Amino acid sequence: MKLYSYYRSSSAYRVRLALNIKGIDYELVPVNLLENEHQQPEFSAKSQQGLVPVLELDDGTLLSQTAAIIDYIDTLYSCHPLIPQNPLERAKEMEFVNIIACDIQPLNNLRVLNYLKQQIAVSSDDNLAWYRHWIDKGFAALESKVTQHPFIFSKQPTIAECYLIPQIYNALRFNIDMTIYPRLSAIYNSCNK
Amino acid sequence: MKLYSYYRSSSAYRVRLALNIKGIDYELVPVNLLENEHQQPEFSAKSQQGLVPVLELDDGTLLSQTAAIIDYIDTLYSCHPLIPQNPLERAKEMEFVNIIACDIQPLNNLRVLNYLKQQIAVSSDDNLAWYRHWIDKGFAALESKVTQHPFIFSKQPTIAECYLIPQIYNALRFNIDMTIYPRLSAIYNSCNK
Repeated sequence: MKLYSYYRSSSAYRVRLALNIKGIDYELVPVNLLENEHQQPEFSAKSQQGLVPVLELDDGTLLSQTAAIIDYIDTLYSCHPLIPQNPLERAKEMEFVNIIACDIQPLNNLRVLNYLKQQIAVSSDDNLAWYRHWIDKGFAALESKVTQHPFIFSKQPTIAECYLIPQIYNALRFNIDMTIYPRLSAIYNSCNK
Repeated sequence: MKLYSYYRSSSAYRVRLALNIKGIDYELVPVNLLENEHQQPEFSAKSQQGLVPVLELDDGTLLSQTAAIIDYIDTLYSCHPLIPQNPLERAKEMEFVNIIACDIQPLNNLRVLNYLKQQIAVSSDDNLAWYRHWIDKGFAALESKVTQHPFIFSKQPTIAECYLIPQIYNALRFNIDMTIYPRLSAIYNSCNK
């Protein structure tokens, strides 16, 4: 299978983590968002939305949206399960990842920051304040839900780490002070080790 | 169980649809977002994020995030399944709902529109253009994925309708011209019937 990805996209990073944790072979196809490769006809044929990640299966089937892709590969490849089967454990873990997937990342990605800058002429300071606002709201909620170490819900990394690590990587690029989130930072540091 | 909800919240509307389609009894607890009831201590004790919907189980367990709540009730109550078991059908349906859950709703909800207005002093025209921009991007993607009628993926409503109907209801409140999305409109009209 092929994964259309960009190294700075935190959504694509989630899928790379999931594939690598499960040890699944795939071909990485880079799509450079800064050079607008996602808006060229070659990639538009793979993604109507022009968004990475896109997973192309060997039969040509195209899958977009991180949550759909990770659920699919976790269902098909049983080694190292990422999503629990127990309904309540599963709900608690989905709650955690959806704080990132719905309440942080959609507001802070490149297309949104570009829209604020280019269409509404928002200043750099206001743009950065916007980014920090949604990070702070989301990370405060996530911090309150972390009660164990070195992994959030299990004795091994699961879908929660697949979402959290890229989001913290992104936050650090924007110089967010992670010392106010000691539990999230501890998970990040141990996963990077 | 209790559902903390606000009638204008499209996220809470998704969960109400899911519970009602499955015929599950629940107590509705209204949280008036316009009167800031979601920021009062009574509701903060239920939701660190101050967001609806929240599902409170009979044992007091609290679940937030629509995706987690709907997955949980669909796993526990087998009547009228909302999420398919077949991996590829499931992925295609999750792809559809996540376009709404990640690429439309997070950008267009009340807290975001309020932030633009109050913190960045965005004009009413720019605020409306922002709303329409993300609706148009998302609805164009959704329209391209609808190939059947009266329901999107099955012979009965599934999770796709639970997400789509509230999002169109919301769009109509903002006077979005739905005639340019004839397939989405047809699904909306038949579901409302």
